[in-house]
Amino acid sequence: MSLSVAVSGASGYAGGELLRLLASHPLVKVGAITAHSNAGERLGALQPHLHALADRVLEETSAETLGGHDVVFLALPHGASAGLAAELSPDTLVIDAGADHRLEDPAAWEAFYGSAHAGTWPYGLPELPGHREALRGARRIAVPGCYPTSALLALVPGFAAGLLEPEDVVIVSASGTSGAGKAAKAHLLGSEVMGGMSPYGVGGSHRHTPEIEQGLSAAAGEAVRISFTPTLAPMARGILTTATARVRPGTPAEELRDAWASAYGAEPFVRLLPEGQWPATKAVLGSNYANLQLAFDAHAGRVIVSCVIDNLTKGTAGGAVQSMNIALGLDETAGLTLQGTAP
Amino acid sequence: MSLSVAVSGASGYAGGELLRLLASHPLVKVGAITAHSNAGERLGALQPHLHALADRVLEETSAETLGGHDVVFLALPHGASAGLAAELSPDTLVIDAGADHRLEDPAAWEAFYGSAHAGTWPYGLPELPGHREALRGARRIAVPGCYPTSALLALVPGFAAGLLEPEDVVIVSASGTSGAGKAAKAHLLGSEVMGGMSPYGVGGSHRHTPEIEQGLSAAAGEAVRISFTPTLAPMARGILTTATARVRPGTPAEELRDAWASAYGAEPFVRLLPEGQWPATKAVLGSNYANLQLAFDAHAGRVIVSCVIDNLTKGTAGGAVQSMNIALGLDETAGLTLQGTAP
Amino acid sequence: MSLSVAVSGASGYAGGELLRLLASHPLVKVGAITAHSNAGERLGALQPHLHALADRVLEETSAETLGGHDVVFLALPHGASAGLAAELSPDTLVIDAGADHRLEDPAAWEAFYGSAHAGTWPYGLPELPGHREALRGARRIAVPGCYPTSALLALVPGFAAGLLEPEDVVIVSASGTSGAGKAAKAHLLGSEVMGGMSPYGVGGSHRHTPEIEQGLSAAAGEAVRISFTPTLAPMARGILTTATARVRPGTPAEELRDAWASAYGAEPFVRLLPEGQWPATKAVLGSNYANLQLAFDAHAGRVIVSCVIDNLTKGTAGGAVQSMNIALGLDETAGLTLQGTAP
Amino acid sequence: MSLSVAVSGASGYAGGELLRLLASHPLVKVGAITAHSNAGERLGALQPHLHALADRVLEETSAETLGGHDVVFLALPHGASAGLAAELSPDTLVIDAGADHRLEDPAAWEAFYGSAHAGTWPYGLPELPGHREALRGARRIAVPGCYPTSALLALVPGFAAGLLEPEDVVIVSASGTSGAGKAAKAHLLGSEVMGGMSPYGVGGSHRHTPEIEQGLSAAAGEAVRISFTPTLAPMARGILTTATARVRPGTPAEELRDAWASAYGAEPFVRLLPEGQWPATKAVLGSNYANLQLAFDAHAGRVIVSCVIDNLTKGTAGGAVQSMNIALGLDETAGLTLQGTAP
Repeated sequence: MSLSVAVSGASGYAGGELLRLLASHPLVKVGAITAHSNAGERLGALQPHLHALADRVLEETSAETLGGHDVVFLALPHGASAGLAAELSPDTLVIDAGADHRLEDPAAWEAFYGSAHAGTWPYGLPELPGHREALRGARRIAVPGCYPTSALLALVPGFAAGLLEPEDVVIVSASGTSGAGKAAKAHLLGSEVMGGMSPYGVGGSHRHTPEIEQGLSAAAGEAVRISFTPTLAPMARGILTTATARVRPGTPAEELRDAWASAYGAEPFVRLLPEGQWPATKAVLGSNYANLQLAFDAHAGRVIVSCVIDNLTKGTAGGAVQSMNIALGLDETAGLTLQGTAP
Repeated sequence: MSLSVAVSGASGYAGGELLRLLASHPLVKVGAITAHSNAGERLGALQPHLHALADRVLEETSAETLGGHDVVFLALPHGASAGLAAELSPDTLVIDAGADHRLEDPAAWEAFYGSAHAGTWPYGLPELPGHREALRGARRIAVPGCYPTSALLALVPGFAAGLLEPEDVVIVSASGTSGAGKAAKAHLLGSEVMGGMSPYGVGGSHRHTPEIEQGLSAAAGEAVRISFTPTLAPMARGILTTATARVRPGTPAEELRDAWASAYGAEPFVRLLPEGQWPATKAVLGSNYANLQLAFDAHAGRVIVSCVIDNLTKGTAGGAVQSMNIALGLDETAGLTLQGTAP
Repeated sequence: MSLSVAVSGASGYAGGELLRLLASHPLVKVGAITAHSNAGERLGALQPHLHALADRVLEETSAETLGGHDVVFLALPHGASAGLAAELSPDTLVIDAGADHRLEDPAAWEAFYGSAHAGTWPYGLPELPGHREALRGARRIAVPGCYPTSALLALVPGFAAGLLEPEDVVIVSASGTSGAGKAAKAHLLGSEVMGGMSPYGVGGSHRHTPEIEQGLSAAAGEAVRISFTPTLAPMARGILTTATARVRPGTPAEELRDAWASAYGAEPFVRLLPEGQWPATKAVLGSNYANLQLAFDAHAGRVIVSCVIDNLTKGTAGGAVQSMNIALGLDETAGLTLQGTAP
Repeated sequence: MSLSVAVSGASGYAGGELLRLLASHPLVKVGAITAHSNAGERLGALQPHLHALADRVLEETSAETLGGHDVVFLALPHGASAGLAAELSPDTLVIDAGADHRLEDPAAWEAFYGSAHAGTWPYGLPELPGHREALRGARRIAVPGCYPTSALLALVPGFAAGLLEPEDVVIVSASGTSGAGKAAKAHLLGSEVMGGMSPYGVGGSHRHTPEIEQGLSAAAGEAVRISFTPTLAPMARGILTTATARVRPGTPAEELRDAWASAYGAEPFVRLLPEGQWPATKAVLGSNYANLQLAFDAHAGRVIVSCVIDNLTKGTAGGAVQSMNIALGLDETAGLTLQGTAP
């Protein structure tokens, strides 16, 4: 068996990471590789780390070049995927790495993205309750944002188990710069980012805020409100999310830990680390793993969960491939057996 | 006028930073430079960036070598300063960069440090209400911890103005690795820390937790409880603190901002940035400045304050020199006019 | 088919990289994982990126634990492998990632390593003339040093083709810090290495100097003398080697390029990049590829070759696995199809 | 005494570094601060590390805004300074941080820069033989390039003493990314440069090549030909230059060392380190120092010199201020007493 798979947005970081994973996927044959302004160029000039595909030439992103594949990955600016997907066969599995089809609430979409809502697709985070089932057989999938992937994996077990209070949830994430994309911007120059950290999108204005609240509220069965602050760290890849919530009074510490342990005990890519070991982003770099650890701070009455992922792998392309595997009934781990690249 | 100043612990990062600043201080003559295991070595071999003092030889740390100076800086492991200070003249200004004399509550000291409390000295963070006055004429000063410096500067104005609630205060800090000192440890190797982030001391166990609570509680006039999570960032210097607290219902956004603006309007080293500009650690590297910005997240009902300092300068040696200047009635900014080193 | 493979030195960087590659090798079953001072610990605590092997426990390194496998990788301090190898069956493939069996000249060994020469094993750099053949069926293999791998790949084609002069060969390499190992040393702390570069082993004193000269001289058919300067770069992995030699007068530029193009045209892991594209270490990170480019500087009469590898992969563990594949008659690329991890 | 000093190009890295130094210069009053596309903006928004000048507003770069100062620093793209300088009074000290007036040979200028030669100004590297004298009283000064500063400091003493041969000189430099400027370019994004190294301008094509040859040839009294390869290192600041040349046969090792020791023994900013200590870029970061060390490789018959500078300080703005001090008869070290910022 060999699936034909097309990747659009192949000159960017998400597209490059999709190709990195797909190049080693045992059941995949990489078909069209497309881009916009870089169409006509060799992939090897744009993504020199993709040795196996170096001589492939990028085609123009269009329904024609993407059509006729079993699977199409869209790694496009938001707003671009709905129209393109509509032109592709409903039998084609279309996986959108962009934001367009993640939010269920049109008002939230419009408030944060300023355009008309394009509808909601099944959400490619199979570790959330009920999500794996919803992905089976799906032909349209929305890949979660990188921050929401880490934040939801961090807190959903506690909310799903009814152990956390829905107010005063605080999430602070540090992300590598690849999350900001490959477009040339002066504040993202190496000279600016090396050796320093800075926050951005503070005060609830980051677009991933409603996406995180959507996932937590669904798990909690009530509206959860968060304070989310993203920060930019001097590293190319990786997210460290520190998530903390007030624990319902009277909850025993062991019950807290059990909630996470039982939620993830059978998951192939999410690991609650042994007690005493704290996660480090380097341990998951280039891999589809999420590592977590939690502590109960009895003095403050809060649980603190640390979750690390690679923003481009589990946070984007790896989650997308994992979702593809589930949708098509393949081994969920196919093409995703890479260990972390450390040190 | 020329003060004779001795620095102990000169082979470490705090000692080196003290010497870097003192070497350019217009009113200071650097006297004894002392260390423990490195006594007898050239400073230039241990701290090659201190060109002006390269040929000085380190002496043994003792009351004899440190005695007879106007000012003595102690940059020693905790537990070592009380005994040494007792041997120095009460007229000598002794400034302890270690933790021994920061905490007022002996129980908190014993719980977090596991030894007998050595007593409390005036706390060298002059920007806190009443602290500058307490430092004037002091002959014993405790330099604040680096995390507490950033956290207290971030939140004290809101608590002092009565605008913040004392529960569910959450502080997440990212620190450069120099905060962990110069002792060789495998988990602090460049290979381990470059390109990644990790948390540590999670769940309220970090020793700076009671120090932060002490300062916030004093400002609030009631007990403040915090959740504090430090993380290690891939940079040598700098702290980015994200501090967030619930705003008392009904507080207007402008009143919030006014609290910080009026607290720091006349401060020489703490700057509330113009609205829209977020702080970056690189802007304060090597300088004694703290830059802040805040946002009111009405949806979450919380204020989020970002504060950046250089952990070795404002967070340790710069704050120490600033305190020295105040204690001795010098210009508070003497020797501290360095701009940030960027990019 | 499934080979049983043991890895010693599994708590270090070379051992960890071997396990990272072997964990994904389709024909390998990882057997004993051994260490010295870390014996008895979980691999997951020491190498948290090796998710697939996290629960394996390290055994003591000995002929007993390593015996009975088809292949044994030794990643030990130099001096330790000869004795251990002598206790293993001559039918076992023993691959030494250390230096002990690389040098042919006992005098060079003794001058640079200060101990008795342990003998020479086939040298695991199959891209050198005649080396692939020598590895077929071998049961003892010496893995080249990381600097020699990059320097020999850079210059051997020119010497083998008789185009370069044997004097005034200059090689300057920048290496990531993992090349210095995982032992805790103060000068390798993240605080010391981040944001800076420094040379070491200058003036011909680095132990890889005779190893590079050995390989170049064999290719040239005459004694080649080099000036080799290694430098430490603020990155965890990767080597950029700049190698330059005087071109024999009258050599046409195209003949120069042809020498490299024909040497590597059929190689699976060494790529001469298209003209105009210069290699970057990030394009090969975590992969077994070596990327090269060359320029003829007519004004200076010299060729300059840039070669990048990952010091831990092609420079150590990847080269070792490639050699194993050749020795055992497997597909040379088995287990080595990883692309680079970028950005 | 207080000199009025104007700085153009103030939004870039060279302009920012000039202002960082001038803000602490005891004899300087910063006058007009000018830029092109950023005119009208607050300096604090563009160079947030320059706290002392944060509220200054950038003016348009023109002869009008720059006129009427004692000193004008030009930090402009090449080609822009000659016209502007012609409009400024011949009594004004004009210091050009750009390339326009460095090269003496019009043919070399035209070959490497592709435009008409603008003439030659005194070259602001006072440590070269005769240069300090030429700078005294000068009113037009060309600041050397950053690579030439490090390469000339590394090799000139040997050539001036007649100890080195003029062929097969090889220079390999690793530079921080600030040398490439602040313009947004995708290949300079943090995601691209962090964690990796790459060469550029290989084969003698970099524009600093003729500038280095000019300086070496003048010192040697004969034409020196070099192979120069610049590489980009993952750090914001700093240059490590490895320079190597063939030693004339029969030269004793001590004579070699003496050449450098006597050349720099009285220099305030260039230090030949004690034997056994190798230079590190971090020791000079933010300072005007150049640190050097050399080794004689008898086997290869070559001397290897390692030289480190901060490309923005000694390599640009610091050298410019030092030249200003000399030209105006001030203390040469005024405003340049900053130590390195380490760790």
